[in-house]
Amino acid sequence: MKKPYISKNVIQRMPRYLRTLTELQKEGIHRISSGELGARMRLTPSQIRQDFACFGGFGQQGYGYNVKTLRDEVASILGVNRGFQMVLVGTGKIGQSLLENFDFESYGFKLRAAFDIRHDLIGENICGVPVLDCSEMEDFIRSNGIHVAVLSTNRAGAQRAVDTLIAGGIRAIWNFTECELSPGDSDVIIESIHFSESLLRLGYHLSNSASA
Amino acid sequence: MKKPYISKNVIQRMPRYLRTLTELQKEGIHRISSGELGARMRLTPSQIRQDFACFGGFGQQGYGYNVKTLRDEVASILGVNRGFQMVLVGTGKIGQSLLENFDFESYGFKLRAAFDIRHDLIGENICGVPVLDCSEMEDFIRSNGIHVAVLSTNRAGAQRAVDTLIAGGIRAIWNFTECELSPGDSDVIIESIHFSESLLRLGYHLSNSASA
Repeated sequence: MKKPYISKNVIQRMPRYLRTLTELQKEGIHRISSGELGARMRLTPSQIRQDFACFGGFGQQGYGYNVKTLRDEVASILGVNRGFQMVLVGTGKIGQSLLENFDFESYGFKLRAAFDIRHDLIGENICGVPVLDCSEMEDFIRSNGIHVAVLSTNRAGAQRAVDTLIAGGIRAIWNFTECELSPGDSDVIIESIHFSESLLRLGYHLSNSASA
Repeated sequence: MKKPYISKNVIQRMPRYLRTLTELQKEGIHRISSGELGARMRLTPSQIRQDFACFGGFGQQGYGYNVKTLRDEVASILGVNRGFQMVLVGTGKIGQSLLENFDFESYGFKLRAAFDIRHDLIGENICGVPVLDCSEMEDFIRSNGIHVAVLSTNRAGAQRAVDTLIAGGIRAIWNFTECELSPGDSDVIIESIHFSESLLRLGYHLSNSASA
């Protein structure tokens, strides 16, 4: 498969395309024009045509897009169904909430185990996921070929967990800790959910809105 | 105060500047060059000089930035210390985790109340924040001049909560529901934390990394 250059902004929008197309499929809609899709997503039709052109088209002038074909193509571009193996580190409230509410499988991730240092949690089972001792983590990652770790420890434990994950050979970290993680010399992929940055952006827009 | 045009990418970086400069202050560092700041943030010195130039400078060639001055200026641009009044809607695991762990005050937000529909939670107090009945929400927002709502309901309750918030005159919503919210004709500001989009971006980068 050829890998065209895709801009960061297009990649940012791909998950939204996947979500919207999945919704359309559930609603039983088989075909959609760039105008209709744009209206749903608050994007211009030409923006949408341009985005999909990066991946080689999929649409037909005056005929619209086949929802299923387009959805499958976007899913494949995003690597959904690659069966990435995953662990979660830190089973506090955020970690537990993810285990209980987040549908990892539907995004192509298989959650194999959770890790914690708290003895009252080790040995438990949260929504079918066993909670293991952090001291076993490096071995577990190596022997089970784990690709991705969800990092939901407290701030104090974050960097040590990262070092252990990297020692075990982890390839990507989904970071909920609000810490700026240091991957050292490793080329591990870090994708962060920064609550505070998001709230500060909101505050910026609120400060600068007409009625502020 | 003059309001210069500031690009979306610069605004995206401002919260990181604030976080890094606050850390530097705590470490007792008074002055920093664009090179040193860049090394910490993995940005080039010229990128940093360019970003701050948008706001009219602050630095002096060959002398660096005064950490406190720069930090205060960035905080002011972001609207920290404006004392925005805030409520939280939905006290499930995510909502509770935010109430217990997130330092809203340090970002300039004053959390006045939480709302839920569950009778076992109404009347409780979570970390000093009273949990009230959703039926009181519209009035509360209007009479207390609430600016911002954290939306952490389940998906099913999200849009109805939004409609009520808008009816009460809310100005901004910090959205944790994974739903694409419809603000109708209102000009409410919506800033979303999209877990799934973030994870899908991670999957994309993992699929396209050299060793995939």
